[in-house]
Amino acid sequence: MSLIVHKYGGTSMGSIERIKNVAARVAKWYEAGHQLVVVPSAMSGETNRLIGLAKELMPQPDPRELDVIAATGEQVSIGLLAMALKARGIKAKSYCGWQVPIMSDDAFTKARITSIDDKKIRKDLDDGYVVIVAGFQGVTDDGQITTLGRGGSDTSAVAVAAALKAEECLIYTDVDGVYTTDPRVVPEARRLTKITFEEMLEMASLGSKVLQIRSVEFAGKYRVKTRVLSSLTDPHMPLSDEAISGTLITFEEDEKMEQAVVAGIAFNRDEAKISIIGVPDKPGIAYQLLGPVADANIDVDVIIQNVSHDGKTDFSFTVHRNDYARTMDLLKSAVLPKTGAATLSGDTKICKVSIVGIGMRSHVGVASKMFSTLSEEGINIQMITTSEIKTSVVIDEKYMELAVRALHKAFDLEQAPA
Amino acid sequence: MSLIVHKYGGTSMGSIERIKNVAARVAKWYEAGHQLVVVPSAMSGETNRLIGLAKELMPQPDPRELDVIAATGEQVSIGLLAMALKARGIKAKSYCGWQVPIMSDDAFTKARITSIDDKKIRKDLDDGYVVIVAGFQGVTDDGQITTLGRGGSDTSAVAVAAALKAEECLIYTDVDGVYTTDPRVVPEARRLTKITFEEMLEMASLGSKVLQIRSVEFAGKYRVKTRVLSSLTDPHMPLSDEAISGTLITFEEDEKMEQAVVAGIAFNRDEAKISIIGVPDKPGIAYQLLGPVADANIDVDVIIQNVSHDGKTDFSFTVHRNDYARTMDLLKSAVLPKTGAATLSGDTKICKVSIVGIGMRSHVGVASKMFSTLSEEGINIQMITTSEIKTSVVIDEKYMELAVRALHKAFDLEQAPA
Repeated sequence: MSLIVHKYGGTSMGSIERIKNVAARVAKWYEAGHQLVVVPSAMSGETNRLIGLAKELMPQPDPRELDVIAATGEQVSIGLLAMALKARGIKAKSYCGWQVPIMSDDAFTKARITSIDDKKIRKDLDDGYVVIVAGFQGVTDDGQITTLGRGGSDTSAVAVAAALKAEECLIYTDVDGVYTTDPRVVPEARRLTKITFEEMLEMASLGSKVLQIRSVEFAGKYRVKTRVLSSLTDPHMPLSDEAISGTLITFEEDEKMEQAVVAGIAFNRDEAKISIIGVPDKPGIAYQLLGPVADANIDVDVIIQNVSHDGKTDFSFTVHRNDYARTMDLLKSAVLPKTGAATLSGDTKICKVSIVGIGMRSHVGVASKMFSTLSEEGINIQMITTSEIKTSVVIDEKYMELAVRALHKAFDLEQAPA
Repeated sequence: MSLIVHKYGGTSMGSIERIKNVAARVAKWYEAGHQLVVVPSAMSGETNRLIGLAKELMPQPDPRELDVIAATGEQVSIGLLAMALKARGIKAKSYCGWQVPIMSDDAFTKARITSIDDKKIRKDLDDGYVVIVAGFQGVTDDGQITTLGRGGSDTSAVAVAAALKAEECLIYTDVDGVYTTDPRVVPEARRLTKITFEEMLEMASLGSKVLQIRSVEFAGKYRVKTRVLSSLTDPHMPLSDEAISGTLITFEEDEKMEQAVVAGIAFNRDEAKISIIGVPDKPGIAYQLLGPVADANIDVDVIIQNVSHDGKTDFSFTVHRNDYARTMDLLKSAVLPKTGAATLSGDTKICKVSIVGIGMRSHVGVASKMFSTLSEEGINIQMITTSEIKTSVVIDEKYMELAVRALHKAFDLEQAPA
């Protein structure tokens, strides 16, 4: 008998029929003797409907009150799922975030979980209940409702699994796992049976939208064995088949398997590039340039500063495309006049392509193989950044698919590692 | 400066436009220097939508989980109303039942409020906030969500007003007050400017649906000055006009005014009559007959036992029409065989008509005037019950409108009391 956490996304909870399928799947695990905690999202479309109502009243909704409203989506889901289980004759009990409680800070609409009290859940599990915990929501020390941001139910599930020291956290979603890259771009893309949490972290941060990035951080920090798998398969499939399906997020040192050098290829076309040319190269210049951008709540992603010559340097960074115009205005009006920089240029038609793999740590030549592959395809690289387990390049947006396909082939990703 | 509680029903909260009107009305009171606590219901249709979802999973939804789901309707309303006020530049803060907290017993779907902690609300009021409290919901000692039954937001509002010792509780609804009878039946029906809480209690219990009966009990017990008025009037009407509109529920001894003998006429066609003829008249027979009915959770309304002759008596009572078939089955199969009663008869085509008035206490002849009026119209009376301030008769359903119109005229209800 193991303690297992299931998480179901909005699509899996999207209708009464689908909720019945979720209950059938949970029942199968429960009847096999496991203790089950289930974390559902809001029914698909519901969170957007609620936010839409709020925006009719305030184009920028008050964050505290928006969370009061948005949290109701998951509250409906937990009640419905509890009923679907009871209708099958299974004891079930629902909890809102504040009832567990799942404590969080007070950063409304993007709060972070600070602690989870597992007493009530544990007692219910011991009494034979399936426990259903609302995803996406928490409560502050002074009893205010918070939500955890888009995809926050993933984090709820992993955090609950961590608090309960669950055997495994199963994230049921509408894809059947994590792929070497997006199958819509590369038809040969292969589902990974395993991925390390560090690779998953990079894949998530680079735009692969399978899991909320914070859930991956949680999985890594608390060593939660997490599996991404499909809820769209037959809920009555044999348990043994289901327990090895999807993609398991593992921890490097646990693994004896031969590790592929590159696990996957991520890409992101939501960014825009801004370059400041001829910046006087003196201490504090990066802060002078980027401090005002950060103060305006604009997230900066890739930042590159080249070596200087003649006391001048070039400075480039990327921001989300939605922030491009605002950032350019800010630099022109408030920043450049103070720094004596020469010229400003920008480009929204770029994309970022990254190879990710924990094997890069111990294998030399991975980055150079990436560069040569792109060169052979005639693709010019505009920016490069590297970390221990990923190499990212910024290229012209129009080459994105070509680059991803060429790299997928060059690193033999269509083949399972030997 | 006074502390005022406003309650808005589902129709008043039924769309974003209407919520803006509610905010305009609250703003007018706030800007006149009052402290405001606002209790909204769920947007009209929302509670039924949520219950409908639940019933797709369980025809008889689990009460605990149904409350988890149903409570979200009011939770959305408080967030939206807080935003509508903030959009007008007014400080506002929302509270769910559990956040106040509004404590209740654990009778899910029909819980009763046991206590309200006013500390947080009072502090916010002193800090200049409009405080918005979710109607219809409470929380048990062990942190479970409850709801207070249909119309429960009225009770929430009056209970909050009692806890805060508010100057007045204004119940905004889609009618402009309490009428001498239903204007759809008697066009000459007159709005009462005042009604005693005891009369209101009888009117509510007799099917006049303006207020949930428990809210009237609360108003009486805690002496909450409560006014029923329309939210459909211009929200910018002068405050002085609004403050004297609608119907004020008063307390007898506060009033010096000339009291009309009869305040109004209530009627109810949701009941069915059951008669048990030839029951052996011995101690405990009423319990033997009605105990099993109560055990089956069937509410019995009017109960009449006539004087016996030859050691036999007749026993009649009314139940809700929806419970009629079940009650007849129960009596036939389980009750009558044990009691030796002779025959059972029933009739669903009945209605109950009642005259209500605190003046009946000190005026003789009110009941007999009622009976003579009905007699003149050729209406046969099937059952009669009386209390201190009301007289009810059960008659053939088809005479209902005729009876109500005749009584309305006989007691001069179209005229304001001198």
